[in-house]
Amino acid sequence: MAGQGVTPRSEDYSKWYNEVILKAELADYSPVKGCMVIRPYGYALWENIRDQLDRRFKATGHVNAYFPLFIPMSFLEKEKEHVEGFSPELAVVTHGGGKKLEEPLVVRPTSETIINAMYAKWVRSYRDLPILINQWANVVRWEMRTRLFLRTTEFLWQEGHTAHASREEAEEEARRILDLYADFAVNEAAIPVISGMKSENEKFAGAVWSSTIEAMMGDKKALQAGTSHYLGQNFAKAFGTRFLNKNNELEYVYQTSWGVSTRMVGAVIMVHGDDKGLVLPPRLAPIQVVVVPIWRKDADKQRVLPVAQKAYQELRDAGVRVKLDDRPELSPGFKFNDWEMRGVPVRMEIGPRDVDSGAVMLARRDIPGRDGKQSVSMQGLVASVRRLLVDVQHSLLDRATRFRDSNIHEAKNYDEFKEIIEAGGFVRAPWAGTPEDELRVKEETKASIRCFPFDADGKGGTCFYTGKSADRIAIFGKAY
Amino acid sequence: MAGQGVTPRSEDYSKWYNEVILKAELADYSPVKGCMVIRPYGYALWENIRDQLDRRFKATGHVNAYFPLFIPMSFLEKEKEHVEGFSPELAVVTHGGGKKLEEPLVVRPTSETIINAMYAKWVRSYRDLPILINQWANVVRWEMRTRLFLRTTEFLWQEGHTAHASREEAEEEARRILDLYADFAVNEAAIPVISGMKSENEKFAGAVWSSTIEAMMGDKKALQAGTSHYLGQNFAKAFGTRFLNKNNELEYVYQTSWGVSTRMVGAVIMVHGDDKGLVLPPRLAPIQVVVVPIWRKDADKQRVLPVAQKAYQELRDAGVRVKLDDRPELSPGFKFNDWEMRGVPVRMEIGPRDVDSGAVMLARRDIPGRDGKQSVSMQGLVASVRRLLVDVQHSLLDRATRFRDSNIHEAKNYDEFKEIIEAGGFVRAPWAGTPEDELRVKEETKASIRCFPFDADGKGGTCFYTGKSADRIAIFGKAY
Repeated sequence: MAGQGVTPRSEDYSKWYNEVILKAELADYSPVKGCMVIRPYGYALWENIRDQLDRRFKATGHVNAYFPLFIPMSFLEKEKEHVEGFSPELAVVTHGGGKKLEEPLVVRPTSETIINAMYAKWVRSYRDLPILINQWANVVRWEMRTRLFLRTTEFLWQEGHTAHASREEAEEEARRILDLYADFAVNEAAIPVISGMKSENEKFAGAVWSSTIEAMMGDKKALQAGTSHYLGQNFAKAFGTRFLNKNNELEYVYQTSWGVSTRMVGAVIMVHGDDKGLVLPPRLAPIQVVVVPIWRKDADKQRVLPVAQKAYQELRDAGVRVKLDDRPELSPGFKFNDWEMRGVPVRMEIGPRDVDSGAVMLARRDIPGRDGKQSVSMQGLVASVRRLLVDVQHSLLDRATRFRDSNIHEAKNYDEFKEIIEAGGFVRAPWAGTPEDELRVKEETKASIRCFPFDADGKGGTCFYTGKSADRIAIFGKAY
Repeated sequence: MAGQGVTPRSEDYSKWYNEVILKAELADYSPVKGCMVIRPYGYALWENIRDQLDRRFKATGHVNAYFPLFIPMSFLEKEKEHVEGFSPELAVVTHGGGKKLEEPLVVRPTSETIINAMYAKWVRSYRDLPILINQWANVVRWEMRTRLFLRTTEFLWQEGHTAHASREEAEEEARRILDLYADFAVNEAAIPVISGMKSENEKFAGAVWSSTIEAMMGDKKALQAGTSHYLGQNFAKAFGTRFLNKNNELEYVYQTSWGVSTRMVGAVIMVHGDDKGLVLPPRLAPIQVVVVPIWRKDADKQRVLPVAQKAYQELRDAGVRVKLDDRPELSPGFKFNDWEMRGVPVRMEIGPRDVDSGAVMLARRDIPGRDGKQSVSMQGLVASVRRLLVDVQHSLLDRATRFRDSNIHEAKNYDEFKEIIEAGGFVRAPWAGTPEDELRVKEETKASIRCFPFDADGKGGTCFYTGKSADRIAIFGKAY
């Protein structure tokens, strides 16, 4: 590790983001253009995200399956909007086993088509519905400008694909999943999100409608953190996915698809990180507590180390994700900085004086300096640590929510809009523009409609752009 | 589901294998040549395999990471034997984002090369070693003849890639992993395996030596169920993966790689299945217990169903993977056959008379008919079920071990060898032949050296083929 510090976030957000990922060893650039390597610390974070999502999927009746990586080009072409949306981004396999293929195979950019080809085979009657399948997989979208975790040619994600006997049931499913994503974001990632509908311009290629959870990053830009689509019968018609309904009539199934990707790791970094590096929410942190024993003289080491080991063992046995940093060649100060940069939520310091008093020092990552430190008794250590982890989790969510809310502004006219966007932040305002208006605003200000938030359903006002009466509220922001 | 029965295993093993996979909905053929779809029931089995392996990897200090799907063709060419071994099986991406690529990208058939490119960047000194990384991923090998789970163009696996500061440590790691695989196979999959060394002909392309766990399937053929390779410095030299050792000298790292794939699902099917279908070992079964309530009259249903629900809830709360089959439109007999075919280890029947006596009937899948049935009290139900699941697990392992051992024979000469192989089974005999002899034997009998078993280290005798004095024992068999 060459040098510990990172460029402060406040100095250069973009540089900070890349540096913190590389120095905290979350990921690395690979020799393959646009593809990254997810290193063990970053992958452990992704595993925790995956497990917490997977638990929620299974609790709501979903099951996992696995479909082929390769999709015949002709399949993509069956749904017109879908192929238009994805064809500029495809990676194409033309040769296999030393021979040119009769039909090129696309490396999946998403799996609606190949999955519908199977559903068309599996579904016969309403008794076979609903199908509630999720897949954890890698996908490839050929990107021109890539960014670690946020936009890479290959990325990891989950993609849910469900089929239902009625439109109502399918739309309900798509909304239920968006709520599930929001619940995950808020309660696991400590990221407040705005749930809402995507505009026509921004919806998924092939969907009837797309819903999204949108989050505000530390630089006041927006990140789409998860999407849930109602596909209607579009893919069902393209693939002939039909069922005999209760009236014994053949009907196309109603479908949804939804996904969260390794982008979520980028969101966690950007929402919580600070000048010193990562700040990870305890519920997702690969290491929740790092124990750092402190000694100068060897006699002190003999007294301190066993206590540190005992504390480590107690926490570990209690199911806390804990690491003991007893590397002899490094100073405590170096270790403090190192684990701070890596975003470990709680540091436990144990020195000779702590041992004397039967206590340890707990330092929380989210509050720097003395204010974030407290001495707690070795008695009841596990309970103290657990309480502190819960407290850190809540305070990260509070902080992120306050930050976001103080950076969402109303705009009465386009000039106000431009000022707010220029200064950084979201605009929340009535909108009556056309899709073309939306594109013009984007061209002029780089801000796009992030969503029409559900919490404003039924509200309206005067459109800041057209001056017309608007029957809905939009959230605008510059987006990643 | 069209028709419940499967072709009996005893009648046509190969047909039975395919049918049972399709009818039990473990997997399905896909429209992409050579690629299969892993359906939810099959994927749940794979998840259990994955979790039990992953637990063992982590307990031995390994961490997960993720490397790119695509590998530049030039990387593969850096290790001569490696590229020779894999080049006939490659899928090649030639176009991305609508343009022809400057250098074709290979879809990973295995990741030694791309991983070494990263290790070369990460490793500086002996302090950076060992690296103990595992990856769960999909890989692609263009196969001519495919078989569900056993040989598919795309498959799922884990691939461990470790780097060490000494040859001893690396060789120890490769052996430790093989032991871990054997422990998994025996204690989770109830599959007895023979651990040993691969012959030169059969070793991994690029390895110094390859070790393997070999299992005997129900048709007495062999299946390689997992391999662990010592790579020496072959890849390190190709990629310049060097470290400063304790004497401050630059030295190439010593490496291992090892993998288990979705093939393991095929092994579980083929080792334990019977004429009626799947028989799943309780520790890996997605459903360990199926509860089937039995009633004819509606009055009986009112009494039976609540008891079945109570039993289901109790087992579920105790962490047993249980399913309640209360589908009203199907008869108990149909359900019995269905769950038998799907290999659920224990069936619980609850009828009016059971309710009267405060008991339930447990039927174990591995022992057909009355012999496998026992009535147990609703009191202490969880304990009874747990005991039975352990018992089924052990008895499956016992049965498979007895079957295997009774089908391994010694051969004194080539005629005896041919008779044994012809009749089905393994030959265990001294071997002093050359690699060319081995190929000739394979051509003439279809049997190859599965391994030189570790349990025969130091033993020898007269070679059945060459008549020469042999200093090692080989296991031969026809293999999948």
